Amino acid sequence: MANVQDICVSAAINIFSAVVFLIAFAIIRLQPVNDRVYFPKWYLKGIRGSPRSGRFVSNFVNLDIHTYLRFLNWMPAALKMPEPELIDHAGLDSAAYIRIYLLGLKIFVPITLLALFVLVPVNWTGKTLETIKDVTFSNIDKLSISNIPAGSQRFWAHLAMAYVFTLWAFYVLYKEYQNLAQKRLKFLASEDRRPDQFTVLVRNVPPDPDESVSEHVEHFFCVNHPDSYLSHKVVYNANNLAKIVEKKKSLLNWLIYYQNKYERNPTKKPTTKTGFWGLWGAKVDAIDYYSSEIEKLTEMEYAEREGVMSDPKAIIPAAFVSFKSRWGAAVCAQTQQTSNPTVWLTEWAPEPRDVYWSNLAIPYVELTVRRLLMSVALFFLTFCFMIPIAFVQSLANIEGIEKVLPFLKPLIERDGVKSVIQGFLPGIALKIFLILLPTILMTSSKIEGYTSLSSLERRSASKYYLFVLVNVFLGSIIAGTAFQQLQTFMQEAPTKIPVTVGVSIPMKATFFITYIMVDGWAGVAAEILRLVPLIVFHLKNTFLVKTEKDREQAMDAGSLGFATSEPRIQLYFLLGFVYSVVTPILLPFIVVFFAFAFLVFRHQIINVYDQKYESGAAFWPDVHMRIIIGMIISQLLLMGLLSTRDAAYSTPLLIVLPILTIWFHKFCKGRFESAFVKFPLQDAMVKDTLERATEPSLNLKAYLSDSYVHPVFKGGELEKPPIIDDEENDPLVPTKRTSRRSSKMGSEVSSEHGN
Amino acid sequence: MANVQDICVSAAINIFSAVVFLIAFAIIRLQPVNDRVYFPKWYLKGIRGSPRSGRFVSNFVNLDIHTYLRFLNWMPAALKMPEPELIDHAGLDSAAYIRIYLLGLKIFVPITLLALFVLVPVNWTGKTLETIKDVTFSNIDKLSISNIPAGSQRFWAHLAMAYVFTLWAFYVLYKEYQNLAQKRLKFLASEDRRPDQFTVLVRNVPPDPDESVSEHVEHFFCVNHPDSYLSHKVVYNANNLAKIVEKKKSLLNWLIYYQNKYERNPTKKPTTKTGFWGLWGAKVDAIDYYSSEIEKLTEMEYAEREGVMSDPKAIIPAAFVSFKSRWGAAVCAQTQQTSNPTVWLTEWAPEPRDVYWSNLAIPYVELTVRRLLMSVALFFLTFCFMIPIAFVQSLANIEGIEKVLPFLKPLIERDGVKSVIQGFLPGIALKIFLILLPTILMTSSKIEGYTSLSSLERRSASKYYLFVLVNVFLGSIIAGTAFQQLQTFMQEAPTKIPVTVGVSIPMKATFFITYIMVDGWAGVAAEILRLVPLIVFHLKNTFLVKTEKDREQAMDAGSLGFATSEPRIQLYFLLGFVYSVVTPILLPFIVVFFAFAFLVFRHQIINVYDQKYESGAAFWPDVHMRIIIGMIISQLLLMGLLSTRDAAYSTPLLIVLPILTIWFHKFCKGRFESAFVKFPLQDAMVKDTLERATEPSLNLKAYLSDSYVHPVFKGGELEKPPIIDDEENDPLVPTKRTSRRSSKMGSEVSSEHGN
Repeated sequence: MANVQDICVSAAINIFSAVVFLIAFAIIRLQPVNDRVYFPKWYLKGIRGSPRSGRFVSNFVNLDIHTYLRFLNWMPAALKMPEPELIDHAGLDSAAYIRIYLLGLKIFVPITLLALFVLVPVNWTGKTLETIKDVTFSNIDKLSISNIPAGSQRFWAHLAMAYVFTLWAFYVLYKEYQNLAQKRLKFLASEDRRPDQFTVLVRNVPPDPDESVSEHVEHFFCVNHPDSYLSHKVVYNANNLAKIVEKKKSLLNWLIYYQNKYERNPTKKPTTKTGFWGLWGAKVDAIDYYSSEIEKLTEMEYAEREGVMSDPKAIIPAAFVSFKSRWGAAVCAQTQQTSNPTVWLTEWAPEPRDVYWSNLAIPYVELTVRRLLMSVALFFLTFCFMIPIAFVQSLANIEGIEKVLPFLKPLIERDGVKSVIQGFLPGIALKIFLILLPTILMTSSKIEGYTSLSSLERRSASKYYLFVLVNVFLGSIIAGTAFQQLQTFMQEAPTKIPVTVGVSIPMKATFFITYIMVDGWAGVAAEILRLVPLIVFHLKNTFLVKTEKDREQAMDAGSLGFATSEPRIQLYFLLGFVYSVVTPILLPFIVVFFAFAFLVFRHQIINVYDQKYESGAAFWPDVHMRIIIGMIISQLLLMGLLSTRDAAYSTPLLIVLPILTIWFHKFCKGRFESAFVKFPLQDAMVKDTLERATEPSLNLKAYLSDSYVHPVFKGGELEKPPIIDDEENDPLVPTKRTSRRSSKMGSEVSSEHGN
Repeated sequence: MANVQDICVSAAINIFSAVVFLIAFAIIRLQPVNDRVYFPKWYLKGIRGSPRSGRFVSNFVNLDIHTYLRFLNWMPAALKMPEPELIDHAGLDSAAYIRIYLLGLKIFVPITLLALFVLVPVNWTGKTLETIKDVTFSNIDKLSISNIPAGSQRFWAHLAMAYVFTLWAFYVLYKEYQNLAQKRLKFLASEDRRPDQFTVLVRNVPPDPDESVSEHVEHFFCVNHPDSYLSHKVVYNANNLAKIVEKKKSLLNWLIYYQNKYERNPTKKPTTKTGFWGLWGAKVDAIDYYSSEIEKLTEMEYAEREGVMSDPKAIIPAAFVSFKSRWGAAVCAQTQQTSNPTVWLTEWAPEPRDVYWSNLAIPYVELTVRRLLMSVALFFLTFCFMIPIAFVQSLANIEGIEKVLPFLKPLIERDGVKSVIQGFLPGIALKIFLILLPTILMTSSKIEGYTSLSSLERRSASKYYLFVLVNVFLGSIIAGTAFQQLQTFMQEAPTKIPVTVGVSIPMKATFFITYIMVDGWAGVAAEILRLVPLIVFHLKNTFLVKTEKDREQAMDAGSLGFATSEPRIQLYFLLGFVYSVVTPILLPFIVVFFAFAFLVFRHQIINVYDQKYESGAAFWPDVHMRIIIGMIISQLLLMGLLSTRDAAYSTPLLIVLPILTIWFHKFCKGRFESAFVKFPLQDAMVKDTLERATEPSLNLKAYLSDSYVHPVFKGGELEKPPIIDDEENDPLVPTKRTSRRSSKMGSEVSSEHGN
């Protein structure tokens, strides 16, 4: 068991690494050559140009000393932007995401204060552990519930605090849900006209022997929504075409590169080799070669495009149906069309950017089978991942290492090394295991057939949360001790978990403290440094970038990664609730994490991340539910723990808490959830009426005609807004002020950048 | 433990009582004086008149000997009516209800045959119990899984059969769900125009300072459903008025009674006393007295009616909103109206008869609190009811009685008495406890705020099922043995139930066999005799009936009572699934129950029951789900049982079954459930179009104007269709043939009646 000294060593290491990361960030971000890594969002918005001007050196290195003195300026700057502007700048998804950290602060700051002032003194004066000298309890445990003698009346304090904490969490959660629901409604109401407001995704169009899919869709909606049906778009299966388009794009880049080269040096015509990667084969004129290749591909693309458009088999039984009004679309999205609920499935169309095209044509039966298989796979993935973690953790234990590798004993017995191993390794081991997972989970969600990126992310997040819960939380508690108490555990009923886990909880506090420091403190500091994107950008810039367009693409803005990052935050909520009563000394570590992460991610969403889609905080019900699950788990574990401490009066009192919590969840669900999943007719009608009054001559059909076309039919230009490239202009004065507000923010950040 | 002899005694008693009931029924129903008790449905339909004609005696006693010889004729007669006619005659609710019994037959007849031919020989030749002489196993157990030695390879047979039974049940359940969904859609499509097709119930109308509820509703729907809104009806709080109307009706009956009396004997003016129940007080002229009293009440009623109609506080914030088309109503019922999901709640209006008026005005927060309290109450009701049952059952045990009342030992030790006690009492004890319950559950459902009688019944049925599951099923298994093995059970983890219960299952087979015979065989036979309605009718007829109208009201047709009867059927499904693999000899008893009950209830719905409302088999998803729950319980218990028999290979194989079952449930839910809860736009559009073509001049507003008025505003005439009273005409020839088909049935039954 790690003791206070180990914790201090671990804290020192982690704080040191966090500070190193922060200083590195402060220095590296000031170098103009890295500007695209640390401010890509402003580039993508077209507000910031590359800071290359003047002397050659200052293109790469920032020589202005003053800027280094203000290297922590990003922190207040990150907090400066008010929330409405933030929503405008980064979207509601991002703004709602960082509110999760804020929610953590709101819940845990008061809980921490109360716990430190009430429970810590109660525990400290319990004085049980002083009498039992031989057990491996550390000083930390003297501040925990383990220090209270069995059957003591002091448990009343813990019971009362459990109630106070729960009620406080209810209050904050309710307020936050309400707040988010209002924000979402306001966001949706203030949005400009967007194609998805008028459009419904129809899936599982039944086959018709006499009509094509397109005719069938048109007839069906003309009959059943006669007043509001406007038009529809069928969906083509365009995977082949997408490949050709992709190849053509790459050749086009090469062509531009050689043309640039030729222009700069007109004396020498550039040549290339026709073989693999231009490394061997016959030497030919590069510009001619690529021009002819592109011509060939253009012909192929044209043929394929014709083929897809004319072959009825290339049309999948799904369509995007547009309506004359938002009201008509809202009606169609929320109603059932036919008596067979497995055909003509309608749902509100995702944003065009958000559509996951490959999943639009899965029949109902196949879908249910896929989901069954994926649930079974998830079960095995979740429950078999435990074995390696448990193994590594048992190794990370001093005694374990000495047993397996006895010759290392003299080395690891030394105090410094021992502290490092015990304080640092278990956290790192866990972290490494978690890196591989998100891709697997996302793939399994794709197989399950969700039709939008946002729902794929939400689904993956649920799976990842289950994984974190079972493997990181329960796995660390049970398996960690399982290697110490294997015999006891094997014979026990698997369903006595609340008691078994509850009893192990206090003993694992030190482990989780180190975990919070590694994952929460140093990990978040590493996030702001963006080491991987930094290296990748410079590698690409040096070896691959041929044109300005390529440089744009080398700039990887990244995104929040809801699917993996949200479940990790949930782990902190869970730990906070579980330890709030048991080992309150863990709470400050969590509060520090929430505060630091809030700061860092607010900076990141302002300056870095570029979300791929905007769902309007549709994930909040999931976030809320998972926090509720964390609360219920903490309540059950507390019940299990106290039931072993001769506090018989506690069980009936504690069983009220999960019931209340479940009720609270249902209440909130009924009260707010529909704001996140349904589309009220009143709001649709208000927007329709307003629009009819302000733009009576709007040609909606023309407006909608180009949306919901598979990206390849637009030449792949769909994903990104047009980028204004002002590389050659004055880098410091934003050339095109799209709006007063965002340009102001741009110059704020620029000025902070020190020019 | 009861042995084969006890079972035989119990079987003899129950078969004897069933036969007695049936013979009594056959004789009593042939007497004309009881005609209204056994054929009320035909009276209510106006097809059958009272068989009073000719000689005085034959008004009361049937003297035709031939009819007595054919006294079992009702059985084929009950089966004769084809299903489409049955749906037409009794409604889809009733027709679907008896299909539950048919479903039981379809599932369990093949399972029984297979189990008897495969598992019984396998068990019988297991020969474990012959070696253990001292344990109290009976001969029945030699046919059960208990007879297989631990670790035997014979368990493969049981495993295979568990799979076969499950798959067969899937097949039958799927087909039946499909069938019912089609029937429901056909039923809804073939229905005549009905007010509820055009109407939506709107609840939680938010208060508006400037407008009345009525204006607010009108404005809201004019704005948000401009093309389809037609009209609306506000709901009045008319409890006081209903009381006055009720009193007036009773006085009117007395008036008619005295007028009749005076007409028959004009020499003597009837008098009455003004005091309580006409027993004391001043003697006055009866006709004058009642006339004046009625006049007073009419004035009061008028004043109250005016008061209710003019007082804005008497209007509750709910309304029935009608639309110009079924399509418009379908749209409004399925969509969300505003961004606040707790106001303007719309749902498809129940049938006018089906509305539960008192619950229309409960605000959202109150509703969630009520539901929380009722869930807690249900929990205590369910889990504290176990104590008395366990106590009675421990008494019903021979050893228990001897311990408590040792002086009875010589009496109960005699073989006959012993068999009666062991075979009969436990079943009776359970039965008595179950009689009190339905009213409590229905009250709690009413408190929960459901707005239609059908949803109240469905909700109560769910609660009752939970009760039956915990108290009858688990209670009989655990508590029954709990008094024998108290020490063992108290120390065990409550969640090891599958194993504990699974092990007790085979030992409880004999108990459940007697229970099936008492509740299923004799109980169903008692149902057809209608002893209570028979006695009540004759008591009313003799002492209270004053007018023909009173006689109509004395006739209590009753109804199926879905809330209590369906969960009881589910117990048989559960027992069937649980014992199908464990003790197959129990299955024939269940099959007999299903067949007999099918026959009896088919007869009852044709001739007796008068459903209070028609929901179009909306309960089927519940029925399906509860059967699935029964299957899952049986699979878990089998897993628990086999895990104690050294059949280690069984657990992984058996854990697949519940997963498959849950998936099957989800699949069916997705495939069929929406046919029972949603209203497809296509079907609505088809009916609208058809109606516009056939009745272009229909005045829908006038048609709808009178529906959805609180019954008191119609003078209480709403509940029943107008009754054609042809008491004075030829009783045997139906005077008014409402339809060719039903009159045919009427005469069929009449002719079978023997006149």
